[in-house]
Amino acid sequence: MDRWLNSLEETARQALAVPLFRYLSQGARDGTTASEAHAAWAEFRLLPHVLRDVTEIDTRTTVLGTELTCPVAVAPTTLQRAVHPDGELAMARATAATGSLVVVSSNAGTPFADIGATGADWWLQVYLSADRTLSEPLLASAVAAGAKALVLTVDTPVVGTKYDGAGPTVWETTDPAILRVNAEPDLSEAPGAEKATDLGPHDIGWLAETTGLPVVVKGVLRPDDARRCVQAGAAGIWVSNHGGRQLDRSVSTAAALAPVAEAVGSEAEVYVDGGVRSGLDVVTALSLGARAVFLGRLPLYALVGGESAVQRMLTDLQDELVDALRLSGCRHLGDTRGLAVRGPLTGL
Amino acid sequence: MDRWLNSLEETARQALAVPLFRYLSQGARDGTTASEAHAAWAEFRLLPHVLRDVTEIDTRTTVLGTELTCPVAVAPTTLQRAVHPDGELAMARATAATGSLVVVSSNAGTPFADIGATGADWWLQVYLSADRTLSEPLLASAVAAGAKALVLTVDTPVVGTKYDGAGPTVWETTDPAILRVNAEPDLSEAPGAEKATDLGPHDIGWLAETTGLPVVVKGVLRPDDARRCVQAGAAGIWVSNHGGRQLDRSVSTAAALAPVAEAVGSEAEVYVDGGVRSGLDVVTALSLGARAVFLGRLPLYALVGGESAVQRMLTDLQDELVDALRLSGCRHLGDTRGLAVRGPLTGL
Amino acid sequence: MDRWLNSLEETARQALAVPLFRYLSQGARDGTTASEAHAAWAEFRLLPHVLRDVTEIDTRTTVLGTELTCPVAVAPTTLQRAVHPDGELAMARATAATGSLVVVSSNAGTPFADIGATGADWWLQVYLSADRTLSEPLLASAVAAGAKALVLTVDTPVVGTKYDGAGPTVWETTDPAILRVNAEPDLSEAPGAEKATDLGPHDIGWLAETTGLPVVVKGVLRPDDARRCVQAGAAGIWVSNHGGRQLDRSVSTAAALAPVAEAVGSEAEVYVDGGVRSGLDVVTALSLGARAVFLGRLPLYALVGGESAVQRMLTDLQDELVDALRLSGCRHLGDTRGLAVRGPLTGL
Amino acid sequence: MDRWLNSLEETARQALAVPLFRYLSQGARDGTTASEAHAAWAEFRLLPHVLRDVTEIDTRTTVLGTELTCPVAVAPTTLQRAVHPDGELAMARATAATGSLVVVSSNAGTPFADIGATGADWWLQVYLSADRTLSEPLLASAVAAGAKALVLTVDTPVVGTKYDGAGPTVWETTDPAILRVNAEPDLSEAPGAEKATDLGPHDIGWLAETTGLPVVVKGVLRPDDARRCVQAGAAGIWVSNHGGRQLDRSVSTAAALAPVAEAVGSEAEVYVDGGVRSGLDVVTALSLGARAVFLGRLPLYALVGGESAVQRMLTDLQDELVDALRLSGCRHLGDTRGLAVRGPLTGL
Repeated sequence: MDRWLNSLEETARQALAVPLFRYLSQGARDGTTASEAHAAWAEFRLLPHVLRDVTEIDTRTTVLGTELTCPVAVAPTTLQRAVHPDGELAMARATAATGSLVVVSSNAGTPFADIGATGADWWLQVYLSADRTLSEPLLASAVAAGAKALVLTVDTPVVGTKYDGAGPTVWETTDPAILRVNAEPDLSEAPGAEKATDLGPHDIGWLAETTGLPVVVKGVLRPDDARRCVQAGAAGIWVSNHGGRQLDRSVSTAAALAPVAEAVGSEAEVYVDGGVRSGLDVVTALSLGARAVFLGRLPLYALVGGESAVQRMLTDLQDELVDALRLSGCRHLGDTRGLAVRGPLTGL
Repeated sequence: MDRWLNSLEETARQALAVPLFRYLSQGARDGTTASEAHAAWAEFRLLPHVLRDVTEIDTRTTVLGTELTCPVAVAPTTLQRAVHPDGELAMARATAATGSLVVVSSNAGTPFADIGATGADWWLQVYLSADRTLSEPLLASAVAAGAKALVLTVDTPVVGTKYDGAGPTVWETTDPAILRVNAEPDLSEAPGAEKATDLGPHDIGWLAETTGLPVVVKGVLRPDDARRCVQAGAAGIWVSNHGGRQLDRSVSTAAALAPVAEAVGSEAEVYVDGGVRSGLDVVTALSLGARAVFLGRLPLYALVGGESAVQRMLTDLQDELVDALRLSGCRHLGDTRGLAVRGPLTGL
Repeated sequence: MDRWLNSLEETARQALAVPLFRYLSQGARDGTTASEAHAAWAEFRLLPHVLRDVTEIDTRTTVLGTELTCPVAVAPTTLQRAVHPDGELAMARATAATGSLVVVSSNAGTPFADIGATGADWWLQVYLSADRTLSEPLLASAVAAGAKALVLTVDTPVVGTKYDGAGPTVWETTDPAILRVNAEPDLSEAPGAEKATDLGPHDIGWLAETTGLPVVVKGVLRPDDARRCVQAGAAGIWVSNHGGRQLDRSVSTAAALAPVAEAVGSEAEVYVDGGVRSGLDVVTALSLGARAVFLGRLPLYALVGGESAVQRMLTDLQDELVDALRLSGCRHLGDTRGLAVRGPLTGL
Repeated sequence: MDRWLNSLEETARQALAVPLFRYLSQGARDGTTASEAHAAWAEFRLLPHVLRDVTEIDTRTTVLGTELTCPVAVAPTTLQRAVHPDGELAMARATAATGSLVVVSSNAGTPFADIGATGADWWLQVYLSADRTLSEPLLASAVAAGAKALVLTVDTPVVGTKYDGAGPTVWETTDPAILRVNAEPDLSEAPGAEKATDLGPHDIGWLAETTGLPVVVKGVLRPDDARRCVQAGAAGIWVSNHGGRQLDRSVSTAAALAPVAEAVGSEAEVYVDGGVRSGLDVVTALSLGARAVFLGRLPLYALVGGESAVQRMLTDLQDELVDALRLSGCRHLGDTRGLAVRGPLTGL
């Protein structure tokens, strides 16, 4: 038996058009941060507990009050309908089937109402426009479709530069009909419709007031910024470097997580994404202070195989997490504190 | 002249069926912990003493009162009769001949009585069943056959996942007659016969009381767990990550050893296994606080050549240890404290 | 799209004669310091700020009172006319066009007056002769041509040894007419015309008094030396190891910068060169205390394409810096303090 | 121009018989310590001083009162006459011609009187026999031939194991007439003639009293041992791991040097050998506390070319040292303190 999860990236590479796969997999600039993401988890070593009853392993948790079977959920990504015709619907159904949660991109290719109709627990990822009021219709539409929280992306005042080599880009080869279908009315030509470059802590409060939803701030790497977000009312801090797609040479999320979690304490929930590929990565993230872990590229690669493949991906990861917890002597997620170490004790 | 010990793994790879060698050599998951085991010893540097009389080198020690010629002994491993028809008997005779000690797996393919009849000093490795009373016949049989101590494996509530690739597994290609011959009566179908997932410190006391033998806890990597075991009556703490076969990314035993030894102090004996391949590895382990070092894969690979090869393996390792001690200026095993270092002084 | 700046070295390698390219690119001795220069920047990790208004990014600064569009300028290099017929003129015009500054080598192949006539802001790089008075005509000529500061190179009492392999050297294949055209009168045969090997702090004051210009000391790697220079009247400290062309195994400038900047404080300006190839390198240098960053080989390689290529090189680098600042949440250059880190937080 | 010193090892490899070159170049066991020796120097980084008068560089020093042109001398090695017919004579003449010093092996293939007749400054390397009195004739012979000091090798109670692969060994292919010619009378069969395994600090005093010569202890890696030697009357402490030929995984001498030098202070002279190949290595060793640096394999490799090649080797190294000192701003050897660093400042 080989590990099926290991095959997903290569399967996607072969199945998808070159510009699409390149876009999904690439990092900004030299790709340093993107390429380090997984290794940054894998360089932690684990100090398993023994002589603890691990008959029953409880992986349940909540994120902002929503119950999850397992602290693994799906991060927002774009172009899902280019990867598979079912796109966001497959992703939503798979998360619903596994007791997970999906974060839907504000550029999603599927109407929010259709996503809500799957019964999945979902959050909306948000980019705000320079004129904030132009974002209101999209927010209202998501609220109406049952989004349970908003995820404000704060690391993208401009899109990070990537090098695409020769040939057409993904934008030249993608059907525009599957891009940004939720932008109704189409305000993209209105003055102030461009992406905001002046986001500030006040936007957290504005979003919460406008929608009545809790706000998660995604793209935080510094403890001081995490504190600022918490003080401005953020319900969740999402440690992310945008998959290495924005500022290259950004610190890995595996390295940034613990200082942020310590700064936040119990005043907000802390999540993380970036390079998570296995149950061992998840258990490491939990040990370092994450309440839940979000996956970006892995479900996208699985999506090539449709809803069932995404579901298997989530189930396999849950199984790996249960195995890692059991072999670590951890019955509950909270038992993982202190499990992952780096330094003299580890030989690193 | 080449180093004969270096040839054992390759010889075994060529001699054994693919599924068998793969099973013996593989690690869990990505194989990270398995592959780091030896390197973790080799990255220590030694600070030899000079101007000490090293005419006579004394490698004798005791483990739980049993005298050893040299602090190197054989860890429990399964499938020995698949490696060589003489299996555990060859292993026992070789250790007897060299003044070493063998730990016999509770899954051994040779009756305990036959092992005891070799005159070898031996300990029994134990997995407890969910219903502890179902383990009693096997324990009693080992006591009757002269086992001098019990080694309770605590890192295996479930078996770690390995990836086997294509082709049949070792279990599909191994004669079931050489597996678990000591399970008499055969209780494997009885309710509660499955491996315990609720081991606790109390099992240490239960085992000692049930058998009257000292109990060694195998699979400890954390100082706090070592303390718990000592307080529960363990006579020995065996630092092990099960050859990297259970929780992948577990800390190397070379890194875990010194903190555990410090936590245990003189209240119990401390042993270690994992990646030990040479006298330099042994002297490093002694320097870091091990009273004895156990070998898993190396004797298994040697076993391909039968008893004489195992004996030569042990003798060669003893010779290497004597050489390492002499060149380190250490007459006695206790002189090794402080010999192995890591950090600025070493250039690492 | 590929990164054009990445192509410059290879383009130069193909366009230039072997001895010339080898001379420009090589380092002293084993080339250790030369080869580490860029990697030393790239091993820092960045901790970007979020939720800051980055609509406008201000990269303006001053160096010794001269305004720069961006804190990136051109270091002194020789043989520019061997690289391109326009040589120093192309370099000067390109810096003028982009609001940058050029430092002209005292061995330049173009008369200072012609350089001054371009309108570029320029400084003169100075080697002093054993008899300091023999340097005076060249200094006077530079002052007359509008040099705004002097850059005293202090790391070259002798020229570092390089290994050239077989074939002719660059000096055997270069037209002597394009070397040292500003040495008027030609005093190279006069007693005391050889390069000084007894430079001391007093030379800083002598230079300032002789010319009335501020003096920058180039080639400082130690905080104590930086203090000595400041106390002797230096207006700027230029952290440099001469592109790895002098003392091999010199510390990287990326590692030396912060301690020097801390020692200097606000008493002088601190610059750096060495291995800077991208906006991320620049932002790292700024974070570590540099007021401006000088480029040596990159503009030389660009010069193969003449003035327009040098101009594009500078513009591309400015664009990269703006992008890096914006994605780092830094509106002003001073906001970069604390952005670049190395150590446990980074996973390195 | 290429670096001639870089060619010596390859030239020797091609010129010498396989068993001989293998013997000269090999390390003990896995060869870890032997292979790390040079890299351990090369990983230090240098912090050169500037604005110091480096017109004159003074490399002179003394070792136990003997004046050296340069702090580089020749370590004792065996089989010199197998490398070149002139053997020790070529080595002695080359050191005499360059103002260096040679340490002659007690196994030398040339009579001490002939070595003394060259006028070279020389020391005798000593192994003591189990019955110390059997060593007296050889010591007396060296004293008579003008040896100025004794170098007691303390890291070789037994010879470290090396792996030779197939084919004959060097001992099977070497003319015995060139081995141990100074053992007169031949006491090798006498009881107690075997190498001592009980060397102790008292042997230092015994040697000094027996010969009236100062005693250097070679093979010290630990500060505590260095203190013991000094207290027992050693005039010099020679930091060495025997070229990685004795205890494999011994700490590098580059790492061991500074702690030993600090422990010794001014109470004895401190020397070092091991992997020194360049002037940069020498300047690093001086910076870390060595008074002089000894070369083992490099002069042996040069010896393939006879006296003139050894002389050129020494001269080239002296030139490199002068260059390194000048570019480091060091006029005197003592100015090197603090020049070589490892740690955060260096980027390593």
